[in-house]
Amino acid sequence: MHVIDQMLDSYPKDLGGVDQAALSKCIAACRECEQTCVACADACLSEDGVTELTKCIRTNLDCADLCTTTGNVLSRHTGYDANITRVTLEACQAACKSCGDECESHAQMHDHCKICADACRQCEQACADVIAKL
Amino acid sequence: MHVIDQMLDSYPKDLGGVDQAALSKCIAACRECEQTCVACADACLSEDGVTELTKCIRTNLDCADLCTTTGNVLSRHTGYDANITRVTLEACQAACKSCGDECESHAQMHDHCKICADACRQCEQACADVIAKL
Amino acid sequence: MHVIDQMLDSYPKDLGGVDQAALSKCIAACRECEQTCVACADACLSEDGVTELTKCIRTNLDCADLCTTTGNVLSRHTGYDANITRVTLEACQAACKSCGDECESHAQMHDHCKICADACRQCEQACADVIAKL
Amino acid sequence: MHVIDQMLDSYPKDLGGVDQAALSKCIAACRECEQTCVACADACLSEDGVTELTKCIRTNLDCADLCTTTGNVLSRHTGYDANITRVTLEACQAACKSCGDECESHAQMHDHCKICADACRQCEQACADVIAKL
Repeated sequence: MHVIDQMLDSYPKDLGGVDQAALSKCIAACRECEQTCVACADACLSEDGVTELTKCIRTNLDCADLCTTTGNVLSRHTGYDANITRVTLEACQAACKSCGDECESHAQMHDHCKICADACRQCEQACADVIAKL
Repeated sequence: MHVIDQMLDSYPKDLGGVDQAALSKCIAACRECEQTCVACADACLSEDGVTELTKCIRTNLDCADLCTTTGNVLSRHTGYDANITRVTLEACQAACKSCGDECESHAQMHDHCKICADACRQCEQACADVIAKL
Repeated sequence: MHVIDQMLDSYPKDLGGVDQAALSKCIAACRECEQTCVACADACLSEDGVTELTKCIRTNLDCADLCTTTGNVLSRHTGYDANITRVTLEACQAACKSCGDECESHAQMHDHCKICADACRQCEQACADVIAKL
Repeated sequence: MHVIDQMLDSYPKDLGGVDQAALSKCIAACRECEQTCVACADACLSEDGVTELTKCIRTNLDCADLCTTTGNVLSRHTGYDANITRVTLEACQAACKSCGDECESHAQMHDHCKICADACRQCEQACADVIAKL
């Protein structure tokens, strides 16, 4: 989403020393992981073997919620509070780790879990990269 | 987000006669508009002339919420209910119309409103296109 | 939630001729239905007969998203736009109708579906009451 | 919301040694704080002195997002992952602390900030109580 950078560039005040490239990449990763987790939860729900995928669906739902919230928090710069940013990223990173692990364990059977595991890994790493630069 | 199509392709059951190209485009437009509206609300909040932008901020927040919800609803296909899809799209379309109009009226002064107005127009149209094919 | 009325009373401007009692009741119903639908989706997911409940889970998730968004939209009064309010309420009403019907069909087997059906019916009615007074 | 306990009681499997009273209280506090923060952001936006309240609005929006997500995560028990629960609660606790501090600093001037500060303090404590018992 090139609009992420366009919006960061048009922010009227200083972004406060944040690494804009890492931030932009992380917002994009959160939106992609949000989308993938919502879709993976639903695809799992339509599998014949849904009984084997209930933990995966639950973790998808948690991860989707945390990615949405983290994408939102990272898109706000007014009255910046590094502490909220940090703990939100840590929560998102942990959810992406759990969801990535869970989806990976079904990746050979279900393409949607493979795609979702990749999105989770990328978002987990993108969160770690922003945390490292706070 | 090419993952939107990858996830639609990996859905294990039939998508139910939906126009996949229109659906995919609309989900992408919802995610982009969600992101832009969250960022535009915050950019408006940091403008010196925030007192002139309070209606814009409010409409941004409504539009962001509706785009998130619509992106989620459109990403679920299990137990498809055309009625929920239709009214959700209509609500999103109306919010994008209002937010696009509001942002457009500030587009010459604020780049973030110009970018956001474009995202709203695209999402409004994408919703209309899916509705036309339901 | 008595804080809903406290917050409406402390709003610094005029609420714009809205029926405050109907509004307050509808916000409370949206929050209760949001909570119940999130919990019912998860309870269904843990039932041994989850394969019979996949449509119920999906409808729960849609209804939860729409109740969250509607509770948010109804809690904003700045730059009031009756059109967004109306279509959002109509979408919420439709989701509550679908989810109430679906949960009711499982109410004799699952207490969580019975409780959730009641919350959906109350929210559906509360949305209709606000719409009637717009 | 007495439905929170009704839904916890109707969950078909074991809740996994969680302290149900603390959990129920925390979910209720999250929903109340979510509602109060959404409403406080909008009330601040309608104040004549909105320019003094932009940090408050931003913190309200972050806190609302985190309370919604935390209320959702705490309402899911399928495939329970204590690690996600813990970091989500820590993020919510931090957002409630920041938002409570910010709102408290405006509590003498604005009733909505006073009510919201109270809701944030209660939610911060409720999160701490669940964390202490994990």
